Amino acid sequence: MKAPAPLEQLTSALRRLPGVGPKSAQRFAYHLLQHDREGARLIARALGEAVERIRHCARCNTFTENEVCETCASARRDPSLLCVVETPSDQLMVEQTMSYNGLYFVLLGRLSPLDGVGPKDIHLDRLLARAADGVVQEVILATNFTQEGEATAHYIGALLHARGLKVTRLARGVPVGSELEYVDPGTIAHALRDRRTVDD
Amino acid sequence: MKAPAPLEQLTSALRRLPGVGPKSAQRFAYHLLQHDREGARLIARALGEAVERIRHCARCNTFTENEVCETCASARRDPSLLCVVETPSDQLMVEQTMSYNGLYFVLLGRLSPLDGVGPKDIHLDRLLARAADGVVQEVILATNFTQEGEATAHYIGALLHARGLKVTRLARGVPVGSELEYVDPGTIAHALRDRRTVDD
Repeated sequence: MKAPAPLEQLTSALRRLPGVGPKSAQRFAYHLLQHDREGARLIARALGEAVERIRHCARCNTFTENEVCETCASARRDPSLLCVVETPSDQLMVEQTMSYNGLYFVLLGRLSPLDGVGPKDIHLDRLLARAADGVVQEVILATNFTQEGEATAHYIGALLHARGLKVTRLARGVPVGSELEYVDPGTIAHALRDRRTVDD
Repeated sequence: MKAPAPLEQLTSALRRLPGVGPKSAQRFAYHLLQHDREGARLIARALGEAVERIRHCARCNTFTENEVCETCASARRDPSLLCVVETPSDQLMVEQTMSYNGLYFVLLGRLSPLDGVGPKDIHLDRLLARAADGVVQEVILATNFTQEGEATAHYIGALLHARGLKVTRLARGVPVGSELEYVDPGTIAHALRDRRTVDD
């Protein structure tokens, strides 16, 4: 006997979640069907809604329901500061420190020549235009402190320097080799305060 | 700044998955939206289909698309053997040993007086009627080897004995205190072979 087809298909679909293997997927599927069908409907609806309504901000690339995100549209943010992060979840982490009041640019990736991710793929042309708009006074590089994140920061820093812009990097309060998404907000707050000038 | 509402709702919905906390839920949501929107649609569709099409077999309670499941309807299974398990995933585990050819009865739970789960909630009236239909010659108790699973097996065993039926229990090849779902098929096959008579 095999499980009925819709159950097999659900188990296999749930493996699309990051880090979820066959055993966890099966556990999720059986749990929802046996104990929480309302939860299953809720998740299905939320997924549909999110895919339908969430797009990328035309200015900063983060997730938004509108053409331009709430942060970019806010009059209370300081437009002279531009913080560059790899992903929307990294941006959320910086926001949660409650210690940054500028704007953002989300790369939606990092330079990774081996995976074929070049400057165009992380929207560097748009970042450069934005940084050189005369309003931005300082670009804070908050890419991850991994090898690729550091290389991306170095690359962007050099480009911005060549245009005479002030560039800083989050202080190394963040443990080297770790991903921003998993660091506690206190540490990130500290690193924001101690950001250092990139002097090359 | 907060994440846009549909994203917050998705993160909160994903917490309905068993063992998924706020951090994992956020990781799932951002991953799907940034890297795998097709996967998000696939999961939503599979959830909807499964909830819509999967119900419980009228004879054994397991998951099925039909009135009666494939196993119960099969002419190649031995109807004189009835294996009692707690959940459909436990049944799947027994099936995966490829060493059992009888039928099943899925309790969809276990006795748990503290949680208010009594004999009615695990369909014991139907199990007793089924076991006494004259076709069943042996009832194999394959509830979990946890405290509640053992108590359930003991309770059911006593009831069946009182009706003069042959009752066996999976051999204790399965480590005490563990859940059937996480045991390897080889061990379960062994335990099936060495099942012992419950001699009250």
